[in-house]
Amino acid sequence: MIRISIDAMGGDHGPEIVMPGLLRVAERRPDVRFLIYGREDVVSPHFIKHPRLRAISQFVHCEVAVRMEDKPSQALRHGRWKSSMWKAIEAVKAGDADVCVSAGNTGALMAMSKFCLRTMAQIDRPAIAAIWPTTRGESVVLDVGATIGADAHQLIDFAILGSAMARAVFGIAKPSVGLLNVGVEEIKGQEDVREAGSLLRAAELTSMDYRGFVEGDDLGKGTTDVVVTEGFSGNIALKTAEGTAKQISGYLRAAMSRTLMARIGYLFAKGAFDRLREKMDVRKINGGVFLGLNGIVVKSHGGTDDEGFAAAVELGYDMARNGLIEKIRADLDQFHARAPELSRRKAAEPTEEGQD
Amino acid sequence: MIRISIDAMGGDHGPEIVMPGLLRVAERRPDVRFLIYGREDVVSPHFIKHPRLRAISQFVHCEVAVRMEDKPSQALRHGRWKSSMWKAIEAVKAGDADVCVSAGNTGALMAMSKFCLRTMAQIDRPAIAAIWPTTRGESVVLDVGATIGADAHQLIDFAILGSAMARAVFGIAKPSVGLLNVGVEEIKGQEDVREAGSLLRAAELTSMDYRGFVEGDDLGKGTTDVVVTEGFSGNIALKTAEGTAKQISGYLRAAMSRTLMARIGYLFAKGAFDRLREKMDVRKINGGVFLGLNGIVVKSHGGTDDEGFAAAVELGYDMARNGLIEKIRADLDQFHARAPELSRRKAAEPTEEGQD
Repeated sequence: MIRISIDAMGGDHGPEIVMPGLLRVAERRPDVRFLIYGREDVVSPHFIKHPRLRAISQFVHCEVAVRMEDKPSQALRHGRWKSSMWKAIEAVKAGDADVCVSAGNTGALMAMSKFCLRTMAQIDRPAIAAIWPTTRGESVVLDVGATIGADAHQLIDFAILGSAMARAVFGIAKPSVGLLNVGVEEIKGQEDVREAGSLLRAAELTSMDYRGFVEGDDLGKGTTDVVVTEGFSGNIALKTAEGTAKQISGYLRAAMSRTLMARIGYLFAKGAFDRLREKMDVRKINGGVFLGLNGIVVKSHGGTDDEGFAAAVELGYDMARNGLIEKIRADLDQFHARAPELSRRKAAEPTEEGQD
Repeated sequence: MIRISIDAMGGDHGPEIVMPGLLRVAERRPDVRFLIYGREDVVSPHFIKHPRLRAISQFVHCEVAVRMEDKPSQALRHGRWKSSMWKAIEAVKAGDADVCVSAGNTGALMAMSKFCLRTMAQIDRPAIAAIWPTTRGESVVLDVGATIGADAHQLIDFAILGSAMARAVFGIAKPSVGLLNVGVEEIKGQEDVREAGSLLRAAELTSMDYRGFVEGDDLGKGTTDVVVTEGFSGNIALKTAEGTAKQISGYLRAAMSRTLMARIGYLFAKGAFDRLREKMDVRKINGGVFLGLNGIVVKSHGGTDDEGFAAAVELGYDMARNGLIEKIRADLDQFHARAPELSRRKAAEPTEEGQD
């Protein structure tokens, strides 16, 4: 049985997409149980409509909902201890849930998750990991925006977190890992990336196959199962890829509707176009995963539909089912046993709360 | 008349694509003149084949050619004063050419360009600008890899350089300019981007319409005519977009050949697919432009064909014809007149050579 805590109020549409999404998950994952937090007046009509969902859920009424436009500090001020978002996260901390899912605003969700779950003892700063569709399948890419800039130690943390996630989600025993870099040689500024690379190579972890540097175009190729970078370039890469995909879809749509011949061709090839659309369907890979905290939190895209929300919940389900947190802890222990100088440095620094 | 100096030995194929490329330019730009540098034994057969090209070209034999795998330091050691790459750049410095084009290796070309032409007095560091195809048309994006990291002053330099290029290439009187950033609020590390934004806003330059921050997905949308970022994230964004475009083309090709119906549909819609391919044809926007030096150098993609090389040369032609260097100088003067505290800071720093 996997128990998932749900912030029913998050996202642009709240329970309207959250509840039908959960129903889909329940159909596909029979051993799932939900702990749902939200306002009773908007959630309970869905329970009446879907008694099956009611049967596998516990519901807790929360008066306060974090708004999509709230700044993290506002959300903490108004929503701590009592909002549906906070309560859903707290359920993981209390051990009542194995994973938490919210479509609420990213900054607020990260701030609350850090405050409630705390960063893991051996981790400098948490990261947001995305699942990236590639020519070969899928890769884990992190950090895509939790923090800006990362030193060698933090990049190594991200590599360990990401490879543990790849093992839990893709079922690969020893995922390949690349550090995102630029190809131009003899250029300054990559000292942290270089240092992270040598340390990872030297550690020879049994849990990952470190492959060296990769570049932006390796993301789409799927050259490695995990791609590690700091949050600024990771966020820009993610949004650039989304933008490019939209741009090309737009070109394709325009090209296919411009002439009669093209429209006829489209009808013949409709099956192929449907498969292409499915391939490019971002809903299926919906979910940014907060890694490095004492518990797993999945952020669903705020504007997604019920199928997209279901994908985020199922991602959380898979990670919990495959023991992601335990995998991370074991990998961290192995790395720090092999690179004691890094552990010492970490011990000499202030606690994680002092650093952000 | 526009005089263009050409490194005939650059790129994966050297004169085999360079010379046919120049012929294409000559057909489309009747007032172009070439100053061609390379090895006589491989260049002269093309002159025999194309007397028309011979008629509008001066040729200078150079024994040494910079290799694609040379590191910048090696290239400088072996190729300075005498290689075809160096000679082509030097022609701009001597005033014999209005712009230089090479398909040679980026690091070597940048190192030689900086050494020979020097960075402009008011500019901290040069940048590489790319022309980015967008839903709305094209944008100038910089820096895409000349240097890693940029402080506020350098980001402002890039904004001024990029908007001057947009005016010269797109013929827009007052290009819109955005600073690339990430959307997550209350996050640390963007101090330089923020500072650059406030200074640009305060300066109210007549040559650009500063619009604030943009994100990765704004690149494909073409939200602004110019997008400014530092070289690490710029390079990653550029390569990520290229990778995504290739990835989707691959999906499309696979989808269109899988079933008989799809193949029939493809035949009907072939005209539309051809237009789409044309739209996505990277050869047409070939050319990284080195900005911020006392002269314009265009880097053509090393693996391009003759049409791609011609596009890079024509980009150089357009920039020279439209007085890019004069535009940059005027814009820099205006900015520094309006933001004297920045000029003072620059004056207090060591010369540009000491900084890279």
